[in-house]
Amino acid sequence: MKGFLAVYTLLLMSVGVMAQHTHGNGLAHSHTYTRVIDFPDTEEYLTLACDFHIHTVFSDGSVWPDIRIQEALRDSVDVVAMTEHLEYQPHADDIPHPDRNRSHHIATESAANTDMLVIQGAEITRSMPPGHSNAIFIEDANALLIEDSLAVFEEANRQGAFTFWNHPNWTAQRPDGVATLTPFHEYLIANDLLHGIEVVNDLTISEEALQIALDNDLTIMGTSDIHGLVDYQYGIAEGGHRPVTLVMAAARTPEAIKEALVAGRTVAWFENTLVGRAEHLGPIVRASLDIIDASYGDDTAVAEISITNASNAEYLLENIGAYSFQSDLGLVRVPPHGRTTISVMTGEVLDSFELRFRVLNAVTAPKERLEIGHTVTVD
Amino acid sequence: MKGFLAVYTLLLMSVGVMAQHTHGNGLAHSHTYTRVIDFPDTEEYLTLACDFHIHTVFSDGSVWPDIRIQEALRDSVDVVAMTEHLEYQPHADDIPHPDRNRSHHIATESAANTDMLVIQGAEITRSMPPGHSNAIFIEDANALLIEDSLAVFEEANRQGAFTFWNHPNWTAQRPDGVATLTPFHEYLIANDLLHGIEVVNDLTISEEALQIALDNDLTIMGTSDIHGLVDYQYGIAEGGHRPVTLVMAAARTPEAIKEALVAGRTVAWFENTLVGRAEHLGPIVRASLDIIDASYGDDTAVAEISITNASNAEYLLENIGAYSFQSDLGLVRVPPHGRTTISVMTGEVLDSFELRFRVLNAVTAPKERLEIGHTVTVD
Amino acid sequence: MKGFLAVYTLLLMSVGVMAQHTHGNGLAHSHTYTRVIDFPDTEEYLTLACDFHIHTVFSDGSVWPDIRIQEALRDSVDVVAMTEHLEYQPHADDIPHPDRNRSHHIATESAANTDMLVIQGAEITRSMPPGHSNAIFIEDANALLIEDSLAVFEEANRQGAFTFWNHPNWTAQRPDGVATLTPFHEYLIANDLLHGIEVVNDLTISEEALQIALDNDLTIMGTSDIHGLVDYQYGIAEGGHRPVTLVMAAARTPEAIKEALVAGRTVAWFENTLVGRAEHLGPIVRASLDIIDASYGDDTAVAEISITNASNAEYLLENIGAYSFQSDLGLVRVPPHGRTTISVMTGEVLDSFELRFRVLNAVTAPKERLEIGHTVTVD
Amino acid sequence: MKGFLAVYTLLLMSVGVMAQHTHGNGLAHSHTYTRVIDFPDTEEYLTLACDFHIHTVFSDGSVWPDIRIQEALRDSVDVVAMTEHLEYQPHADDIPHPDRNRSHHIATESAANTDMLVIQGAEITRSMPPGHSNAIFIEDANALLIEDSLAVFEEANRQGAFTFWNHPNWTAQRPDGVATLTPFHEYLIANDLLHGIEVVNDLTISEEALQIALDNDLTIMGTSDIHGLVDYQYGIAEGGHRPVTLVMAAARTPEAIKEALVAGRTVAWFENTLVGRAEHLGPIVRASLDIIDASYGDDTAVAEISITNASNAEYLLENIGAYSFQSDLGLVRVPPHGRTTISVMTGEVLDSFELRFRVLNAVTAPKERLEIGHTVTVD
Repeated sequence: MKGFLAVYTLLLMSVGVMAQHTHGNGLAHSHTYTRVIDFPDTEEYLTLACDFHIHTVFSDGSVWPDIRIQEALRDSVDVVAMTEHLEYQPHADDIPHPDRNRSHHIATESAANTDMLVIQGAEITRSMPPGHSNAIFIEDANALLIEDSLAVFEEANRQGAFTFWNHPNWTAQRPDGVATLTPFHEYLIANDLLHGIEVVNDLTISEEALQIALDNDLTIMGTSDIHGLVDYQYGIAEGGHRPVTLVMAAARTPEAIKEALVAGRTVAWFENTLVGRAEHLGPIVRASLDIIDASYGDDTAVAEISITNASNAEYLLENIGAYSFQSDLGLVRVPPHGRTTISVMTGEVLDSFELRFRVLNAVTAPKERLEIGHTVTVD
Repeated sequence: MKGFLAVYTLLLMSVGVMAQHTHGNGLAHSHTYTRVIDFPDTEEYLTLACDFHIHTVFSDGSVWPDIRIQEALRDSVDVVAMTEHLEYQPHADDIPHPDRNRSHHIATESAANTDMLVIQGAEITRSMPPGHSNAIFIEDANALLIEDSLAVFEEANRQGAFTFWNHPNWTAQRPDGVATLTPFHEYLIANDLLHGIEVVNDLTISEEALQIALDNDLTIMGTSDIHGLVDYQYGIAEGGHRPVTLVMAAARTPEAIKEALVAGRTVAWFENTLVGRAEHLGPIVRASLDIIDASYGDDTAVAEISITNASNAEYLLENIGAYSFQSDLGLVRVPPHGRTTISVMTGEVLDSFELRFRVLNAVTAPKERLEIGHTVTVD
Repeated sequence: MKGFLAVYTLLLMSVGVMAQHTHGNGLAHSHTYTRVIDFPDTEEYLTLACDFHIHTVFSDGSVWPDIRIQEALRDSVDVVAMTEHLEYQPHADDIPHPDRNRSHHIATESAANTDMLVIQGAEITRSMPPGHSNAIFIEDANALLIEDSLAVFEEANRQGAFTFWNHPNWTAQRPDGVATLTPFHEYLIANDLLHGIEVVNDLTISEEALQIALDNDLTIMGTSDIHGLVDYQYGIAEGGHRPVTLVMAAARTPEAIKEALVAGRTVAWFENTLVGRAEHLGPIVRASLDIIDASYGDDTAVAEISITNASNAEYLLENIGAYSFQSDLGLVRVPPHGRTTISVMTGEVLDSFELRFRVLNAVTAPKERLEIGHTVTVD
Repeated sequence: MKGFLAVYTLLLMSVGVMAQHTHGNGLAHSHTYTRVIDFPDTEEYLTLACDFHIHTVFSDGSVWPDIRIQEALRDSVDVVAMTEHLEYQPHADDIPHPDRNRSHHIATESAANTDMLVIQGAEITRSMPPGHSNAIFIEDANALLIEDSLAVFEEANRQGAFTFWNHPNWTAQRPDGVATLTPFHEYLIANDLLHGIEVVNDLTISEEALQIALDNDLTIMGTSDIHGLVDYQYGIAEGGHRPVTLVMAAARTPEAIKEALVAGRTVAWFENTLVGRAEHLGPIVRASLDIIDASYGDDTAVAEISITNASNAEYLLENIGAYSFQSDLGLVRVPPHGRTTISVMTGEVLDSFELRFRVLNAVTAPKERLEIGHTVTVD
């Protein structure tokens, strides 16, 4: 009797989703989400979810490359790169003398008939300095089997690679976990041989790496560095997700993605934290959040508004504007793909007014959060 | 980046739903449903969810009538009747000498501006025989305050009431719980003064009451008889629902509903069991279930088909047809508002074939289940 | 007060519970909680969940008082007061001339054989000033039916009442929603006739009321002011909860609770926000959080520690200590009755070290959050 | 074998679990389960969950053997065998000339320091007849690289193998999906060279294979035949599970498991169906179900009893005893690791009485279900 068209539509999509609507600083309500990583495009760019650090049995990973494509399809990751260790081949007894491009080729075949992009890459695996680095957008990984550390960066760049420093906070190479530039890195950067740095790697995030990126104009990267299964490592069944780099690209092409990486237009997405320069993070957050349904109750000067969220992040907004709220004490949570209603005490009835928030889960520099403003127009 | 229009639509509806897709005799997967009671209309009739046995503070219930309307709106119950005990008024100290129509009038006001129908009713509350009975579609409950048990049925019928015997299996009046006709009931039935019987009341269901209904041409009724809160009594938050009578009515009007009740076109919906005469249960089950996407795999004689379910019931289907399945050993579960895929071994590739099931959760008589057939046309 | 034993008991009772374990600044994972309101006792006091503002059919509520006891039992609320409007009796046609103590007496009977305490109360219902106020711990509500507003406060205090100002931010009485003291209130406070103020009422919270409480030494109160059903108003099935006042009492007795209220030992619990003076909020937060399993990884100076949470609040901790973390950029979430693991970069291996957090969901004054420190001892 | 202790441990591990309690023929309530496969031991034997058909990159699977151990640990599978195709090596370009025991050896290393047993196996991969078969408990897979199909069975048996026919219903070898013995199979069976048959393989179950097992005294087997990821293939996150063989073994040793297989003491567990000979299925079902808390209500002859379920199966019980129930019309569902309360109308108050059920999800032969009786003693 009752219309369930919407439900039926969803059913056919076989996609589980439960909408959320909280009120002010609410407890996150129980919900079920798909694992889909989903951030909106900005006005200028496509927002592409990219994982540029992935291993398979062709170095020290535990799966065939086809599984990496299946995982990425389930996560709605748009772009991947298999980045096998060039120099570390623990499965060599079983997979002897592999072509260092083999993993990329199998992954590319597995991704045929999908719209996933597979970028050719490799991991340059050295003791510190320079530690580990990835080269992506390369032409031939075999040509990177060069003993001298500087020469391998030169060859990667000769191939047109975008290179980035992996897990500079790795305790196996930095026991204190503090990402720190070495003279070798400074040389690479000065000579435009190193272009990015992992601020996020697997289960870790590095404030010091973020500072290095900002100080040296390096692209901010977030990667999974997955060796086992994505589902196990990130608790996908419990709502977790792999870290990715959100790349703001002019098109869904390798060229456009590389251009964006070189230009530094990235945001790393780690657990519930977005990390990026304000000029990149701002557009993504603003594209995620919208304010709808602003109206005053009868005979009141309290405006009720709804903030919607078109992204996977749960935004934590600290009120830094002129007005206090009736719905909370200035900490507003907007659930992923949900919305929150807040009540703003504007003193008198206004046609429009200004809200201002510090976005606590959007980090632009160590200890600094993105600030956003929004002019609310009353309906 | 990804299309989430469907999700956004659902979001605005603030309705939680998680689609289910199982395979053959699958474990029920974890899911979240709305509390909405939802059975499809049949080809001939509307399927209306009705609760004709409800109490408030105006007899021995614990809520004001407005709560009964809120509960029913949340349950998507289409039709309710407040049926206060005429003779049992434990709140008389606080609510003295009440107008016996008062509860109905408040409920009617509360339901204004909704499409819920509120039918006037009362509970005739006697020791056995005749025990308790409801009269609905009455004109004035006060006029039913008559000492003689027969006279009250006559007056109710004079007002045009549809009457039914409440909880004939109630252990307070039948310690063994076995519904049994008395000569008084036989007289009422013989003289067309009693028209229905509760096969389902609250948390109980009665095989013997079902047999009495079938033997005496009484309408099969299922009601909540709620006194406290529906949410607590039926574990709504955990996925439970109140029992209702599904009335197959020609229109969404009191007249059409009464006509359907008098004609006996009802099915009781209790936990996961549907109880009704085959001629009424069949159309509802057939409207609930559909078979889509029938096709043979390449070079096989095994047809894969999907059975969809447009209702709240989880159908349990026992295969009684000519073919065995690859997907299960003949017990198929079709989740509520979900679907199940089965694989049928038809021996050779056929253009169409016949499936036949016993519907284990659709009861037509004691120990008897509805049987349905379906001709599958291969795409 | 209830602690994890209650949770374990619940498990054995076959009531759902799902513990959470997140990692740093994680997304809240999907989970199912009981509705039980549960904050630990502090070293000095019992922490009692109290709702001192409740209506029934005996004023303008929609349920009999027994439902209020059932709701409170399900919420694990320790103490309730029925606070019917003395002067506003919209059900007077049906419930004429009620004894103003009647609601309290029925509730008390309903709570017999439970360990719930029912405190006698009433709501003094006036236009502004002074607006609405509750008097609890009274002897006879009928004696408060006095026309003069001052006289009713005097009589309540003569009876030994604890009185508090209800919803000072109510837009029906303050269209701008801004809680503001009037001279009448100042008189009441100066003469010790008014002792508390609702910082939290139903779905609203008031920064200005909090400031008034701090400036005037009034007890901070949070109440539901429930008229309909708690389950509907607060979305209990979706994980919501009613607002309560956490009272820090020396014993589970009316006398001890009143003593605590007079002494101002309260914290209001609203959605995910705790509001109270630092000297009260601090002990509750510290009793909620514990640090366990601190250890350094082999050959690293990064300490991994687990923060456990024995309460219903999801704590949002901002790192304001000396060390940065590998697990997040300084925003740590500790899920309700769950735990979070963080990695602390202490520079070198230490036997013990100091962590310091701002607790973003624990508000001590407008724009001010509780700060806590914890010395971690490495295992 | 694992019992509730495992669940309790899981709780302490902060892994979600939600117990279920339904009432009669209830809708399955929303719930979250761990993926743990858990059936109780019987009075005589341990009940071990075994998966004897598994592939890795060493034949045509997509993961390294270590992932198979991780999956099995998460599923609480007690015993596994890697069964690589001897003759089908699609990864030979990358993994040339592998030792056919290599997969087993890596898996064994990965399972060190766990209590999982890894049994050595291989898949004999032929066209029909005899199709594919597994040999487990072998000594050297390389010695099975023999061209003649009969000779390979003879060699496997010389090594002491237990052998079974894989997916006799596979449409690639039997387009109609109907398992059918060939003369070659009859020869193998007659000469004790073939000992079991897969009634369950991956997503399929075969009534005809069950009949072949019963007619020829073959051991009933259920296996995953996993090539990709268990989590994806069986919808683990949505509550699914891999098929397994429950082996009733005298000890948790390879010898005892082999003895049980040779003796035919197995039950296959597929979706929600258990398949086995009545003498094996009966003890497992009886160990799963218990009746507790039988008592009559005051002044009634209706006994209320609780049926508990210590297993992963949701039991569907059809009442075939002498008494009807008040709680349902004879179809009782007992949720996994939950319980159900039913009300039995025994006519008069009895000290003890007999219940009898057909277990609809426990299949002993085509179209035949296990029947169980239970004497209820009233407390």
